[in-house]
Amino acid sequence: MRWNVARRARNVNSSVIREALKLAERPGIISFAGGLPAASTFPVQAFAEACARVLRDNGQAALQYGSTEGLGSLREHVAGMLPWPVDPAQVLITTGSQQGLDMVAKVLVDPGSRVLVETPTYLGALQAFAPMEPELEGVPGDDDGVDMQALQAAATNGEPARLLYLLPNFQNPTGRTMSEPRRAQLVQLAERLALPLVEDNPYGELWFEQQPPPALSARNADGCIYLGTFSKVLSPGVRLGYVVAPRPLIGPLLQAKLAVDLHTSTFTQHVVAEVLRDGFLERHVPAIRELYRLQRDTMLAALTREMDGLGVQWNRPQGGMFLWLRLPHGLDAAELLPLAAARGVAYVPGAPFHAHAPDPRSLRLSYVTATREQIDSGIARLADSVRDALQRRAA
Amino acid sequence: MRWNVARRARNVNSSVIREALKLAERPGIISFAGGLPAASTFPVQAFAEACARVLRDNGQAALQYGSTEGLGSLREHVAGMLPWPVDPAQVLITTGSQQGLDMVAKVLVDPGSRVLVETPTYLGALQAFAPMEPELEGVPGDDDGVDMQALQAAATNGEPARLLYLLPNFQNPTGRTMSEPRRAQLVQLAERLALPLVEDNPYGELWFEQQPPPALSARNADGCIYLGTFSKVLSPGVRLGYVVAPRPLIGPLLQAKLAVDLHTSTFTQHVVAEVLRDGFLERHVPAIRELYRLQRDTMLAALTREMDGLGVQWNRPQGGMFLWLRLPHGLDAAELLPLAAARGVAYVPGAPFHAHAPDPRSLRLSYVTATREQIDSGIARLADSVRDALQRRAA
Repeated sequence: MRWNVARRARNVNSSVIREALKLAERPGIISFAGGLPAASTFPVQAFAEACARVLRDNGQAALQYGSTEGLGSLREHVAGMLPWPVDPAQVLITTGSQQGLDMVAKVLVDPGSRVLVETPTYLGALQAFAPMEPELEGVPGDDDGVDMQALQAAATNGEPARLLYLLPNFQNPTGRTMSEPRRAQLVQLAERLALPLVEDNPYGELWFEQQPPPALSARNADGCIYLGTFSKVLSPGVRLGYVVAPRPLIGPLLQAKLAVDLHTSTFTQHVVAEVLRDGFLERHVPAIRELYRLQRDTMLAALTREMDGLGVQWNRPQGGMFLWLRLPHGLDAAELLPLAAARGVAYVPGAPFHAHAPDPRSLRLSYVTATREQIDSGIARLADSVRDALQRRAA
Repeated sequence: MRWNVARRARNVNSSVIREALKLAERPGIISFAGGLPAASTFPVQAFAEACARVLRDNGQAALQYGSTEGLGSLREHVAGMLPWPVDPAQVLITTGSQQGLDMVAKVLVDPGSRVLVETPTYLGALQAFAPMEPELEGVPGDDDGVDMQALQAAATNGEPARLLYLLPNFQNPTGRTMSEPRRAQLVQLAERLALPLVEDNPYGELWFEQQPPPALSARNADGCIYLGTFSKVLSPGVRLGYVVAPRPLIGPLLQAKLAVDLHTSTFTQHVVAEVLRDGFLERHVPAIRELYRLQRDTMLAALTREMDGLGVQWNRPQGGMFLWLRLPHGLDAAELLPLAAARGVAYVPGAPFHAHAPDPRSLRLSYVTATREQIDSGIARLADSVRDALQRRAA
């Protein structure tokens, strides 16, 4: 049989990341590569109790088909926990927030549509948008977020862009957070340009010193689609996320959701709604913040100690899971990776996170999966690899 | 904000079904409309025990991210339970088999690709294919399955069709089953035409008198994609299905799966793998078969009794959940529906299940959600509605 594969399924170029994650799985490797939350934070006991209660009190309903928009009580919980007025009717439960990206692309992107993204940005968003065959355009930025002039230029360069996709809080991959003034400017500019914003906020609750500035959606809910998830505050394995969307998009989004999996697991929705009762997250999330803050501090201290004099640069994330590092001039993060893996440490090269013009010197480090001891030792190994590569280059 | 909705998200025409399901939710209505399995068959206790064991023995892994292809033990179970040789490496776990349809369309269908479907066929497949903007072409058939001459004509009429989608067993919506000779002919013709088959088999285990003939995939695994699900034999609420695909498609399908939800819930996969241990389905499924067989018999008897002399036709499904009914000449199932609802019974009109040339006299009845008492009374109400409509028409 000769299979005629669709155009969108050819030329998939995520091999760099796949190779990185494969290296990271080798025995003895300290991995800063994946984005796995620390499993020690998962509330296993709360899940066990919730499962027992749900199946005792409501077992048949929890195992039956459910509504496409999601469980009413969970949608109400989500609406209530967001810090701006949200009607539960505008909340759709998704199978992880990754699915929200697929739905958004299906509803807003035609083949050839112009789609703007921060660059670098979350690779999974690029992968979710790609099957709808958009023209992706990366908007550069700085530590405060996307650049306003670059955005204006990109938005008005050709037919109107269908959306701008952003992660304002502790971004994946860079860990950076959009500043308050930049948010205000951005929402104003987007309104003026009639440019829809897609705000992805998986990490916003994982702040260390202070809460990030209010969401873009809180400033102009009618012009934003907001994506959230329980993956980073509860469990990624349940695959529960949500989309908050302006009313005109609810119908098309529901239709897209229906076509892709009918609805998100009724069972996991019932269980998570039960876990969330009585303010569970308010008690649970501070412990995750504290753990990740300590791990970030450990990584920052180790970088300062180990990278001394190597010409390596990095940022100081104020929350979330990732730190962004730049190798010295002349080094390439993808080329360094096998050397680093040989020394027992792995990361993800930064190039694939860029829609265009990859920065080959950049790489992403996660500080949440490895223990503090592993972080110390892994950063030392990474420094050795850099030293090694610099010497090879000089030779 | 003016939202520019993608072409594929406009003109979505499932309003007939939505209206039918809305009517079916009215208090006091006996519904033959939905495709809800009988909740009394859900193994609530087995789920409770499995959840407790999984969270006790393996809680952190069950709540963590998992691999895109699915849990190894579940893939092995699926490979082992299929009655032809299947390598677990060719099994991908999906978020319900609906998601398998989305993945298949993403991987095989370009905008404008010709896609063949039985007509009538599963509406959810039409909805899953639609976002990829194929040219859908319905292939007519009879009680034995698709017509070979019509298929040959459709397959060779223009550029090669990308796939033929079929439900050979107890089809949704018609309840019909493809005969052994037709299957043999079909697989031979598809091979000759190099026409990929997508075989959807949600109901195959729900046979009443005898097992249906072997799957199309068992005859030519290299030319078929097979979709299965635990929805009808265990619980639809867990949203667990699977795709068995030829090797060249595994990579593209995995990429599509990654982009849409990263992976299916690790938690539900662990729980279902635990439920399935020690041959659970072999003990559990016979009870579902027996219940549904009795309910089908009740409906057939009620139809014979109540529809006498009305010129209504129906078939006798050999398994599954649905029966196909044809109203007398001059009646329209969509027009009859409000009358039927006023008398306290609901169904789904058959027209939307057709890719083209809808048959307005046809309608689908589910015999698995209502009790036997409700079936008796609901069919009497339906007969009254038909009588009423015939009288109005005569008047």
